[in-house]
Amino acid sequence: MKIDVLSLFPEMFEGVLHTSIMKKAQENEAVSFAVTDFRSFSGNKHHKVDDYPYGGGAGMVLKAEPLFAAVDALSLDASKKPRVILMCPQGERFNQKKAEELAQEEHLVFLCGHYEGYDERIREHLVTDELSLGDFVLTGGEIAAMAMIDSVVRLLPNVLGNTDSPVLDSFSTGLLEHPQYTRPSEFRGMKVPEVLLSGNHAAIDKWREEQAVIRTFERRKDLLEHAPLTPHQQQVLKRLIEEKNN
Amino acid sequence: MKIDVLSLFPEMFEGVLHTSIMKKAQENEAVSFAVTDFRSFSGNKHHKVDDYPYGGGAGMVLKAEPLFAAVDALSLDASKKPRVILMCPQGERFNQKKAEELAQEEHLVFLCGHYEGYDERIREHLVTDELSLGDFVLTGGEIAAMAMIDSVVRLLPNVLGNTDSPVLDSFSTGLLEHPQYTRPSEFRGMKVPEVLLSGNHAAIDKWREEQAVIRTFERRKDLLEHAPLTPHQQQVLKRLIEEKNN
Repeated sequence: MKIDVLSLFPEMFEGVLHTSIMKKAQENEAVSFAVTDFRSFSGNKHHKVDDYPYGGGAGMVLKAEPLFAAVDALSLDASKKPRVILMCPQGERFNQKKAEELAQEEHLVFLCGHYEGYDERIREHLVTDELSLGDFVLTGGEIAAMAMIDSVVRLLPNVLGNTDSPVLDSFSTGLLEHPQYTRPSEFRGMKVPEVLLSGNHAAIDKWREEQAVIRTFERRKDLLEHAPLTPHQQQVLKRLIEEKNN
Repeated sequence: MKIDVLSLFPEMFEGVLHTSIMKKAQENEAVSFAVTDFRSFSGNKHHKVDDYPYGGGAGMVLKAEPLFAAVDALSLDASKKPRVILMCPQGERFNQKKAEELAQEEHLVFLCGHYEGYDERIREHLVTDELSLGDFVLTGGEIAAMAMIDSVVRLLPNVLGNTDSPVLDSFSTGLLEHPQYTRPSEFRGMKVPEVLLSGNHAAIDKWREEQAVIRTFERRKDLLEHAPLTPHQQQVLKRLIEEKNN
């Protein structure tokens, strides 16, 4: 996969794209990254990429020309048009399903604005997707792009090894993960549940199944609608609902 | 405000914390950042911060001791306990309201794990908040922490100047922003709507009010439940609903 980022602050990406899994993904040739300052496509001698809004009002608006020209340049020798993704709080909310969809593409281009509006022609005629991380305001699209890139790249073949455990993959079973503990068995008076030290694997599995239901019930009831439950988990859930209603 | 980050990959934060608004916020002394590798608090000669889970199973679990020791050290000369925030996909979803709440604190500590589980005692006895960016899987908590830090810091006094327009603040009016355009008035055959070039400010305001309702209706109907609407906007909304039902 090829991932291009268009940003006025390319230096923001240095740390993230050259560490840990992202570094390894490039070394394994699963992905190649390029971050381009689209100011170089401004087409004017002052390198201006924004201008006042037509009709007046506060703030500046990113001009259409530099972003169209930059995407043109990035797609020049591509057989297929890239997926062009605008980072935008008004966009569709990014989630794991969207990450899986983007992981199927050959070429992604992320457009990152920075505390400015976008000329509407960018939305209408240049981008294929407008995506948002959630209902909060960021200074620019850069950090949102990093989050999306990380979650897409780790899904690519030959990126995650066996040692990169999917423990954090809370959504793989449809339930939240059961609690985890490691040594020491007692720390500052806080003890690990007896059952986990028992060596009784049937009891441990049962406890974990139960804890996953309890945690999901407490934190994310919405996930229970679609999660496949074992007969034991169904009993646990029934008990939790009864307890709550009393 | 003081913001501490505990991470095994402190270099990931270099670009983000020293660019743009984050850089300015530190120069203006609105915030001070410190990123600490909690491996230095491992307390063992191999600098080991993770271990196998009790009860067996795949993956490694972050040990309680290094994170407790690191938070102890960071709170040593504080008059008040810091808010200790765990980056976790099982946590409460971060949003603008949470950003505003955190912006009132004096000291935030962000704990970032990296493709591993957390010993449950960290959740139960060390952290005050477990926060998630959304329903997608990241390799570690670092990028999530960057997003939250950016959205909190930009709310602090003396951080955003007049030139840092809040155009992207899509949530301030309760509606999504109307479309924006800037020069040229025609680009590759794509034209700016006539009304914005008319100089008729009453007509422009009316068009923008209408467009904000249309955009919110198309993309985020949920926002319309609580958004204050002008009489003109109420008419527009009524028309949109009627058109949809026909």
